[in-house]
Amino acid sequence: VTFSPLPHAATDWEVVASETCFANEHLAVTSEEVRTPSRPQARLWTVVHRKAAVVIAALTKDDKLLLIQQERIAIRAAIWEVPAGQIDQANADEAEIAAVARRELREETGYDLSANDRLIPLGHFFSSPGFTDEHGYFFLARGVEPIAGGRTPDESEAILDCRAFSLAEVGRMIAKNEIRDANTLRLCARLLAAGLLHFAS
Amino acid sequence: VTFSPLPHAATDWEVVASETCFANEHLAVTSEEVRTPSRPQARLWTVVHRKAAVVIAALTKDDKLLLIQQERIAIRAAIWEVPAGQIDQANADEAEIAAVARRELREETGYDLSANDRLIPLGHFFSSPGFTDEHGYFFLARGVEPIAGGRTPDESEAILDCRAFSLAEVGRMIAKNEIRDANTLRLCARLLAAGLLHFAS
Repeated sequence: VTFSPLPHAATDWEVVASETCFANEHLAVTSEEVRTPSRPQARLWTVVHRKAAVVIAALTKDDKLLLIQQERIAIRAAIWEVPAGQIDQANADEAEIAAVARRELREETGYDLSANDRLIPLGHFFSSPGFTDEHGYFFLARGVEPIAGGRTPDESEAILDCRAFSLAEVGRMIAKNEIRDANTLRLCARLLAAGLLHFAS
Repeated sequence: VTFSPLPHAATDWEVVASETCFANEHLAVTSEEVRTPSRPQARLWTVVHRKAAVVIAALTKDDKLLLIQQERIAIRAAIWEVPAGQIDQANADEAEIAAVARRELREETGYDLSANDRLIPLGHFFSSPGFTDEHGYFFLARGVEPIAGGRTPDESEAILDCRAFSLAEVGRMIAKNEIRDANTLRLCARLLAAGLLHFAS
């Protein structure tokens, strides 16, 4: 498996040595000796490589945000989160990444863009740059509508529910620690900062 | 190494089998067969276990947010982020977690709380619950002041700079994709939702 390349060119970062400690279809752990721009001496680091992701803020015509409730084995909990998914193609371009986002939106929520609408790209983020190259691309979908057939989640996923929440409710859930999913939190930060979302009721 | 326990009790999640694929002092990769509350059939999942983290929003007396610029080997980039660090003690209680946050604040920024101030806990988050149990505890430090001696970062870290940014500037950096660190984004979402931060200039 080839995992996703970084969203930026990394010149001046010289990989002196790299050893694969573990790899399967989901992730690879490497031990890397890397010379960074600030230091002549290479540093040894353990890095987890993963596929990149898409993360989608989907707003209905009455300005509610779609959240799914998903069982997450890694944390032994079912949590509310925005729809998201992995990009299987290693060198996906912008249009292909947007297509993955749209497919995940349809599958996980049973909603889709209206005929003339497009996903609005909102940049990217790094999940936890202390140990993983995992990164994700944010998208905003406005005025989404239910599709015939409803949700068609992947068999490997365990999505228990999908609901539309008012923005005031989402703000309250974030403030009260009821939304603990990092994708949802970081996407809301980007939307709030860009003036594309307001929590005030 | 024992990694950090989850911040919640996980009843009804039965681990049928678990195998360690790789482990060092930084992380452990396990292959786990887990029965979740929603399905009788156990599912197989690859999980990366890590220590829990603290993530700190530090506001100066003139209401600027402290950000550090840190070289991150996993993503081959130096990025602006809020101060953060790992909790070494596996079963740290609330006071011990807050003490780690305060120590990281001092070391990474060279600022500290004023004599009568305390860190305000703001709940927790999961970094990327699709594959890792890594979670972090948010804190707010208001009215921080420079300390004698300045920054004293860990030798293993590569913090290039620390600066205080106006909230309007932080909002602009988030909107423009200049802040891509997930800790910073998710912490800002919590603060904005709780009415503890405002980007409007």
